[in-house]
Amino acid sequence: MEALAAIRRRRMRRALTADPIDDATLAAIVDAGLRAPSAGFTQAVTIAIAREPESRARILAALTTPGWLAARPEMRGLERAPALLLVTVDPAAYAERYGAPDKRAAGLWSLERWPIPYWWVDAGATLEAILVAATALDIGAAVIGTFRGEEVLRDLAGLAQTSRIVITVALGHPLPEPVHGSPSRRGRLDPRDRVVPLDLQAQRLVPMLRKLQGGRSGGA
Amino acid sequence: MEALAAIRRRRMRRALTADPIDDATLAAIVDAGLRAPSAGFTQAVTIAIAREPESRARILAALTTPGWLAARPEMRGLERAPALLLVTVDPAAYAERYGAPDKRAAGLWSLERWPIPYWWVDAGATLEAILVAATALDIGAAVIGTFRGEEVLRDLAGLAQTSRIVITVALGHPLPEPVHGSPSRRGRLDPRDRVVPLDLQAQRLVPMLRKLQGGRSGGA
Repeated sequence: MEALAAIRRRRMRRALTADPIDDATLAAIVDAGLRAPSAGFTQAVTIAIAREPESRARILAALTTPGWLAARPEMRGLERAPALLLVTVDPAAYAERYGAPDKRAAGLWSLERWPIPYWWVDAGATLEAILVAATALDIGAAVIGTFRGEEVLRDLAGLAQTSRIVITVALGHPLPEPVHGSPSRRGRLDPRDRVVPLDLQAQRLVPMLRKLQGGRSGGA
Repeated sequence: MEALAAIRRRRMRRALTADPIDDATLAAIVDAGLRAPSAGFTQAVTIAIAREPESRARILAALTTPGWLAARPEMRGLERAPALLLVTVDPAAYAERYGAPDKRAAGLWSLERWPIPYWWVDAGATLEAILVAATALDIGAAVIGTFRGEEVLRDLAGLAQTSRIVITVALGHPLPEPVHGSPSRRGRLDPRDRVVPLDLQAQRLVPMLRKLQGGRSGGA
């Protein structure tokens, strides 16, 4: 699928079947995630992969509270999803990388010195690469935020104590489902609220953006 | 360009010409950025656009120290680049969004309560969408981290005091340049160091990933 189309069509798909994703397709999605950029080419974002029922169940049990999935029919696809990817990042590696001779002048040898914590940004770039690649390969994807269970997951994946579990992506073959955004936030904001043109030439883009953005409702 | 190819070919391009980017191409790149997902569909990532020499110069002056660009011939393309995009995010909007009735049960009504700060992750997803779209449209892109000048830029863009300037993307038509990674980090890590298979079925992907990743050297 063409890149711009994949970026535009990407949306959260929680209605997923239990049918397996073939190895080549899943490898291509993980490979895409590993291609995302990282500050100083630190490459400290890693992807943990679970495919078998037991490892998937342990991840979902860590991330959710008992009964949470059972009480939400719209989320049951996450249990069926044949693959879960955990996007993780080790912030300590960024301090180490920027302590190296070619980076030391930047003054970022400890994490407190970073005005913007680029490890989270890099994890987000990895997430988008995964989601766009999945869309291009007709694989549905939904994210599960890490609001609990991080220590359990870190141990499960055997990651360093400094590593963080940023987000989990459930992948599977999508069932048809209606396009809808977050219940209280249906529809996109007008791009005038999300774009700041800093000069007249930039201002010229706003009507074009409204047209491009208006072509889609729904979201997440 | 096909989505997986764009994700794989993306790399930092600092050698950019001064030739303008046409409106439709630049609008498509910004539109791609606005399509990235956001936690709770908060949509609080915004993109500020500078195209005219004066606004571009003010941004570069805020982000760099005097003489920094002049002393680095490999960075001079950033001055020529006909468009700069500032990816910004307002973390306060996330607390407000999760204070709404449909999200309040998550307990995330103040930023301190978020285990993972998803505003940075969302900004990173936006960044990747911009970079992949630019690659697909044969536009070169290089990022400039916000290590100084954030307050000046916030004022310049007229953003809320709670907004953060996450990263700047310089866009332009790329000159041919050798593929190289960060000077001390040429080459990618072996995917065995960046992938954690949690079961035997996941383990099966590792040789495929080594093959996919091995096809490329260089990075950033």
